[in-house]
Amino acid sequence: MEILTENRSVKHHCGLFGVFGHADAAALAHLGLFAQQHRGQESAGICTTDGETISRIAEMGLVNDIFTKRRLESLRNPAAIGHVRYSTTGSCSDQNAQPLMFSFAGGQVAIAHNGNLINAALLRQKYESHGHIFQTTSDTEVIIHLLAKPAHQEKTRPLVHVLNHLQGAYSLLLLFPDRMIAARDPLGFRPLCLGKMPNGATVVASETCALDIIDAEYVRDVEPGEIVTVTKEGVKSHRFGGDTNGRGAACIFEQIYFADPSSNIFGENVHLVRDRMGRRLSHEAPVDADMVVPVPNCARCAAIGYSNESGIPLGRGFTTSHYAGRSFIMPDQSSRVHQVKVKLRVIRDVVRGKRLIVVEDSVVRGTTTRGKIGALRKAGATEIHLRVASPPIRHGCYFGIDFPDVSKLVATNRTIEQIRDYLEVDSLHFLSADGMLDCVKMPRNKYCTACFTGDYPVEVKEPFDKFSMERSQLRMFT
Amino acid sequence: MEILTENRSVKHHCGLFGVFGHADAAALAHLGLFAQQHRGQESAGICTTDGETISRIAEMGLVNDIFTKRRLESLRNPAAIGHVRYSTTGSCSDQNAQPLMFSFAGGQVAIAHNGNLINAALLRQKYESHGHIFQTTSDTEVIIHLLAKPAHQEKTRPLVHVLNHLQGAYSLLLLFPDRMIAARDPLGFRPLCLGKMPNGATVVASETCALDIIDAEYVRDVEPGEIVTVTKEGVKSHRFGGDTNGRGAACIFEQIYFADPSSNIFGENVHLVRDRMGRRLSHEAPVDADMVVPVPNCARCAAIGYSNESGIPLGRGFTTSHYAGRSFIMPDQSSRVHQVKVKLRVIRDVVRGKRLIVVEDSVVRGTTTRGKIGALRKAGATEIHLRVASPPIRHGCYFGIDFPDVSKLVATNRTIEQIRDYLEVDSLHFLSADGMLDCVKMPRNKYCTACFTGDYPVEVKEPFDKFSMERSQLRMFT
Amino acid sequence: MEILTENRSVKHHCGLFGVFGHADAAALAHLGLFAQQHRGQESAGICTTDGETISRIAEMGLVNDIFTKRRLESLRNPAAIGHVRYSTTGSCSDQNAQPLMFSFAGGQVAIAHNGNLINAALLRQKYESHGHIFQTTSDTEVIIHLLAKPAHQEKTRPLVHVLNHLQGAYSLLLLFPDRMIAARDPLGFRPLCLGKMPNGATVVASETCALDIIDAEYVRDVEPGEIVTVTKEGVKSHRFGGDTNGRGAACIFEQIYFADPSSNIFGENVHLVRDRMGRRLSHEAPVDADMVVPVPNCARCAAIGYSNESGIPLGRGFTTSHYAGRSFIMPDQSSRVHQVKVKLRVIRDVVRGKRLIVVEDSVVRGTTTRGKIGALRKAGATEIHLRVASPPIRHGCYFGIDFPDVSKLVATNRTIEQIRDYLEVDSLHFLSADGMLDCVKMPRNKYCTACFTGDYPVEVKEPFDKFSMERSQLRMFT
Amino acid sequence: MEILTENRSVKHHCGLFGVFGHADAAALAHLGLFAQQHRGQESAGICTTDGETISRIAEMGLVNDIFTKRRLESLRNPAAIGHVRYSTTGSCSDQNAQPLMFSFAGGQVAIAHNGNLINAALLRQKYESHGHIFQTTSDTEVIIHLLAKPAHQEKTRPLVHVLNHLQGAYSLLLLFPDRMIAARDPLGFRPLCLGKMPNGATVVASETCALDIIDAEYVRDVEPGEIVTVTKEGVKSHRFGGDTNGRGAACIFEQIYFADPSSNIFGENVHLVRDRMGRRLSHEAPVDADMVVPVPNCARCAAIGYSNESGIPLGRGFTTSHYAGRSFIMPDQSSRVHQVKVKLRVIRDVVRGKRLIVVEDSVVRGTTTRGKIGALRKAGATEIHLRVASPPIRHGCYFGIDFPDVSKLVATNRTIEQIRDYLEVDSLHFLSADGMLDCVKMPRNKYCTACFTGDYPVEVKEPFDKFSMERSQLRMFT
Repeated sequence: MEILTENRSVKHHCGLFGVFGHADAAALAHLGLFAQQHRGQESAGICTTDGETISRIAEMGLVNDIFTKRRLESLRNPAAIGHVRYSTTGSCSDQNAQPLMFSFAGGQVAIAHNGNLINAALLRQKYESHGHIFQTTSDTEVIIHLLAKPAHQEKTRPLVHVLNHLQGAYSLLLLFPDRMIAARDPLGFRPLCLGKMPNGATVVASETCALDIIDAEYVRDVEPGEIVTVTKEGVKSHRFGGDTNGRGAACIFEQIYFADPSSNIFGENVHLVRDRMGRRLSHEAPVDADMVVPVPNCARCAAIGYSNESGIPLGRGFTTSHYAGRSFIMPDQSSRVHQVKVKLRVIRDVVRGKRLIVVEDSVVRGTTTRGKIGALRKAGATEIHLRVASPPIRHGCYFGIDFPDVSKLVATNRTIEQIRDYLEVDSLHFLSADGMLDCVKMPRNKYCTACFTGDYPVEVKEPFDKFSMERSQLRMFT
Repeated sequence: MEILTENRSVKHHCGLFGVFGHADAAALAHLGLFAQQHRGQESAGICTTDGETISRIAEMGLVNDIFTKRRLESLRNPAAIGHVRYSTTGSCSDQNAQPLMFSFAGGQVAIAHNGNLINAALLRQKYESHGHIFQTTSDTEVIIHLLAKPAHQEKTRPLVHVLNHLQGAYSLLLLFPDRMIAARDPLGFRPLCLGKMPNGATVVASETCALDIIDAEYVRDVEPGEIVTVTKEGVKSHRFGGDTNGRGAACIFEQIYFADPSSNIFGENVHLVRDRMGRRLSHEAPVDADMVVPVPNCARCAAIGYSNESGIPLGRGFTTSHYAGRSFIMPDQSSRVHQVKVKLRVIRDVVRGKRLIVVEDSVVRGTTTRGKIGALRKAGATEIHLRVASPPIRHGCYFGIDFPDVSKLVATNRTIEQIRDYLEVDSLHFLSADGMLDCVKMPRNKYCTACFTGDYPVEVKEPFDKFSMERSQLRMFT
Repeated sequence: MEILTENRSVKHHCGLFGVFGHADAAALAHLGLFAQQHRGQESAGICTTDGETISRIAEMGLVNDIFTKRRLESLRNPAAIGHVRYSTTGSCSDQNAQPLMFSFAGGQVAIAHNGNLINAALLRQKYESHGHIFQTTSDTEVIIHLLAKPAHQEKTRPLVHVLNHLQGAYSLLLLFPDRMIAARDPLGFRPLCLGKMPNGATVVASETCALDIIDAEYVRDVEPGEIVTVTKEGVKSHRFGGDTNGRGAACIFEQIYFADPSSNIFGENVHLVRDRMGRRLSHEAPVDADMVVPVPNCARCAAIGYSNESGIPLGRGFTTSHYAGRSFIMPDQSSRVHQVKVKLRVIRDVVRGKRLIVVEDSVVRGTTTRGKIGALRKAGATEIHLRVASPPIRHGCYFGIDFPDVSKLVATNRTIEQIRDYLEVDSLHFLSADGMLDCVKMPRNKYCTACFTGDYPVEVKEPFDKFSMERSQLRMFT
Repeated sequence: MEILTENRSVKHHCGLFGVFGHADAAALAHLGLFAQQHRGQESAGICTTDGETISRIAEMGLVNDIFTKRRLESLRNPAAIGHVRYSTTGSCSDQNAQPLMFSFAGGQVAIAHNGNLINAALLRQKYESHGHIFQTTSDTEVIIHLLAKPAHQEKTRPLVHVLNHLQGAYSLLLLFPDRMIAARDPLGFRPLCLGKMPNGATVVASETCALDIIDAEYVRDVEPGEIVTVTKEGVKSHRFGGDTNGRGAACIFEQIYFADPSSNIFGENVHLVRDRMGRRLSHEAPVDADMVVPVPNCARCAAIGYSNESGIPLGRGFTTSHYAGRSFIMPDQSSRVHQVKVKLRVIRDVVRGKRLIVVEDSVVRGTTTRGKIGALRKAGATEIHLRVASPPIRHGCYFGIDFPDVSKLVATNRTIEQIRDYLEVDSLHFLSADGMLDCVKMPRNKYCTACFTGDYPVEVKEPFDKFSMERSQLRMFT
């Protein structure tokens, strides 16, 4: 037997949730994290405070497995922050599960982070050279080292001062015994929004779907370069980060793939953005066919747009399993039993003899897409025209998305024709970068499209990998 | 806090899988059961034989949680049968997890059963009165008592003789140390099909999706009233059950709700049947609207049919969670946080201000549908026209589907108008029974439609409940 | 690495506990079983009744691991029976964990059994030939088949009638919804006693140490051939089994090895019996030495007797680990790291240069004793005189003690001198059978000494092994 | 029901084990920790290095439960350090389980510590005021902060420099990727010894019993004020700590209670020390009686000495359970069921009507001893003369033993007569401090007897509790 593990290409993203001023803060955090489980399935954690002391439960696993009734009751306190994470490491260690909790001269603090600090390794080196010791391999730990520095603590606004040291992407939640703080980097890479419970409690979440599940009302987004401090006295806002010349860096890939279709992020609904991308796609590369088939699950929004715009009927080419876990034991002799089959099943009688327009949201390595195309072909599709609702991914991300090495991206060093050939489709079109940006609402300079265009919103001077946490991670956990 | 448990209305159905003649029989059974996990999530089990001795692992839980690599290796043998089950009881007992395994004068035997024996309680009473003892509360155990009876063992074909005693629905798999036997009741209530592995091994499964996942080729259905015996010498078939006057009783609800859309059962593809039901629905009760919205997940097939036939565009009104477990701890003060939200999220910007045609596959209690309708209304839908791709359910099932008490069905003692009023929709139409039967392939007298029509294919003389296993179950496990 | 598993020579014995008429029956059973954990460490179980329905929890593991607070609360009922077991099989199956629970025409019944039925296999064959089916491989299950037989149920006293069919050793506890029954075979192989709680509740236990732990008062032993029935109306006694011509078969090995030294069984205190055996030993084979060293743990009673009688001071040659589990991973290169070391540590400075009288309670295979002797020798003991407080074991037990095959007993086909040679001791003496019987209180014909003398109290006609359950066990679970 | 938790009076002590230069280092560490399980049952951990990277597994639980075969294989490396701990906190957190592992400018380091640093809180305050952050509440973490300090790293011998900052008791093991270091504080509070494997590998352990279990040869003790560095090149020794004026502080309580009787510590065998204490006791307070009864388990050594010296025969008054876990659910109505019964059972027929000399090793709170005395009295002992093989404990320990608050010690503010009265014994004698010191080998000024005499070997200036870690612990984990 061989063990077949899933080979997700895009695996690093995190979700945040916080609530201040509600007796059931831990139970609300449980629901808020559950609603954002798609943002990270490897670990989950909640920290709560009773006003004086912070408690923490965080470990590897799914939200609903970790937080039993008994554990939630042990965390029952009027304020909570939580985190879900799909780490970059694949390690089974609980040590990096967030929120992290530390003690320093100022007392206790817990922190949850979505994003990636590109100068974390340099900062860590610096603090190590000053004698600091580290317990995790997370870039998040350096933020607390910065915060604990006496010279920083003496500033009028220590956190403003600290955040000005950070480079990269960070939506943050901090919990002190008496207050909760939310912050978003000046370019606004990752989403973060504010909501309000019927009882007046303040809620913070990565996506609005976490507000919906607890009947919280959406108030507004945390602005890029904004720190929001929530105490018993109320909510205060401070700005940091200086002038970005109007530049923003909202991650367009959140709209394309990460966020839940029911969420509103960066000012608009995710499904509708994807629907528009599908419509646009139908204009950029029209083709005559019998049926538009979405590749589950993410491409369904774009496929609906494509079908409605083109008038070519939508067809259900696949069913999906709702029970798939991480790995399967495969029989030796059935080498043709591909992993794709475990999660997706072709409805053969639907696709047999048909000319298909297959809509994907994005293509990363190409291996999974290739498997799905092969399954449709084997089921008897006569033509397969692949339409991808985003441009080819050809550049790495240093801001929180864990693409594989550039060398493993299907579009690296391949022309569109070569990709078409590799994927074994009859025709192939990727949405143009222009087309993509036409489908979103904010001005173009407010988005980061670096993975598609190589146009990084922040100069990444040092060969990032050289100082990456991953190296020390290897040293600590391998 | 209160604990919110899911309130599925239809919960009893089982799935079978067997393979004979493949070194990795247990690993294949694992995959075959996984592909049929939708047929039962409460318990799962596999029995294998090495030719002399049967081994068994069966317990409460999901297929992929129970069968670890180590356990599959401990079951490595050339023949296996497996079972998934959603029991009627909600008990946490492993004792009823199938396959059941027994020892009798003829040696060892394991048995897996999908269906329901309407004379099981009477047979159990009879055997108990002859001094037999029972360890489970399953109707399945009586089959082995019948089989072990010396008078029955002396018959030329003991199993034929035994099956002739049974009344009701039964697709069965039996495993003896040296052979696997599949059987289907004379009316053919539940599906059961035969397949072949590339190496020639014989496979049996409830649905063809279990063949697809292991690259087995579909050969044919096990016929109603057929016993298929698989040994090293090959496959033999025997008939039993006598003449049914051409009557069959293929469960139409398998086509409407149970089976996976990618499966072929009763001679045709499930998705295509549902697609036709959606199309038919659009003709039976046309209505002007902006968008056709399927209620996830099951109604998507019918909604596609409705949209394509009517020309009204399909819209994505909901997203679904892939991580929902059995129960959630809910905060006290958020009483409006309904369970529906945990699994389904409305895409508000999609439905706001729209006139919707909402397509459901079936309505049982009505409570969940009502919740979903309310969520759409709250999100701003201006009109909601509910179209249900099956007739109203008004009668109990004694053949393997665990509907709630008739008194709890929304359609009992309610006119369509009253149901419309209860569900708070602007208009409501259920597919006609005629329309439903027009969408399937076999002659009308080959289907059981009793839950819709009250036309039972077998006379259920005794007040069934009076002798039900459930009573003794209560006595044994409460 | 190799895995080192413990190689206990004597592993089959069970413990019983029952209580009727106390609101905390399950919690009392938990304590009563815990106090008798030495009688069986493989599985444990408790069944309780609320007067109408029996509940059961039984699985592999130690008493205190299985019975959590939550589980005990779920079993809270006014009557309970419990069982601890060290099975003969080493299988990891929960299926045989007692008490077993069945349903038959008379309703529910649970049963717990200590002993061994020598005609169980024959009875099982008979019932199987009448069409009965079996779910366990336990000899205990046949008792319920007998009890459920209609012809037996029609007797005035069905249980009396049933017990008269049984041959062998059985102390039994049965629980019906409304009554608890204790019974002991006519020869009284295994101990069973009655006690009373301060509130008047009736208690039954294998050993009095289970009464002590719950502050129950010892009332009397259940007599050989007695059935004690406990209901709300009170306690009734019936005799069965006819005349044994004054013969009894109290297992002398219970006095030598099984029972806790604090218990009174067969009418006298276990420690004092062992102390007398040690004293007797000092007279049968006196030897000049510096120190009497007991082999932990069981031989400490006899060693104290030996030392006090001989005047040779007691020395502590070993310390024992209280934390030893079942198996250890051993480093490859340390082949001399014997398993003995994991449990026992020699106190080298105590034994170095000393002439030792080492007292053992019994020697079965001899391997463990040999290891201990070797450890003392390696630590520098100059002379080692082994004194065993029981005769050589040379015959199998068919009545509930699971000695290894006769071929593996060290005393089979070896003279005392050859055993001495094998164990590498300077001198060796086994307590004489006469001496042993002088140390216990009842007349000699009331004891079974078959393992030492071959004098079986019951004729074991059939080659027992031929029909043993173990064979079918192999068929069912291997 | 109430839950009865064990109320051990002395619960803080730890055990260390390290090995360098053996392919099975992790498996050896497993055995070495197992042999020292008596030194700490709350958590256990092992860190190993492959020469470049350190791996770690540490959590709450017993050695043999935590280290499965699979886990040991994942740790298979040629060097390992391990730790067992009974923490002062009772918290269920894994966060403090040792060895701790950190990363700093010098790379990775793991640390295991037995003892207590009396200036840890002050050092932590200082480092926190310099901006350091802490993840654990352990006093051990400050050692690594000291070590990581650049000014310290620049010293010729950084560790020597660091250890000179520490006050209190510390036997330490550090593991760097390429070396293992053992160190013992200048006063030598806790034991630490060096051994050698047959293959030449160097072993370090708290007690020699850990050498015995792996067949390692005892070489010598690590000296007070010595650092032993083990690399591939061999073993080097350095001194630190300056002159102590010949003062030592070997913890006499290790000899009395902690260490295993089979171990040699501080230059002599533990059992023989205790045997001498028992003999001495018989001279200090002779009394006429029938029997000397040890209180299990620890007092057996002293009781043997007492009996052999006095000529009064040893008797077995108690049996002990080998299966006791942490807590028991007790029935409400049996309030007289004391916890003592769960672990100890009186052999009534032995003590009834007897005049007993009961030997205890030490008395802390007195509650447990009182319970045992009461049990003997209830069983019918006519006289009970308690002899304690150590002086009354009247002072706190700041060096690694977690006695309860002084206010809870039975001997605080009580005369011997008042203690006798509280314990309800007929006569009472504690071994004199002089007598105690006569029974050990080293000069009197080499021992710490502060808990008995109040004569602290180190001035404890600050009210220790004021700055204790426990306060911050409460803040972090409550």
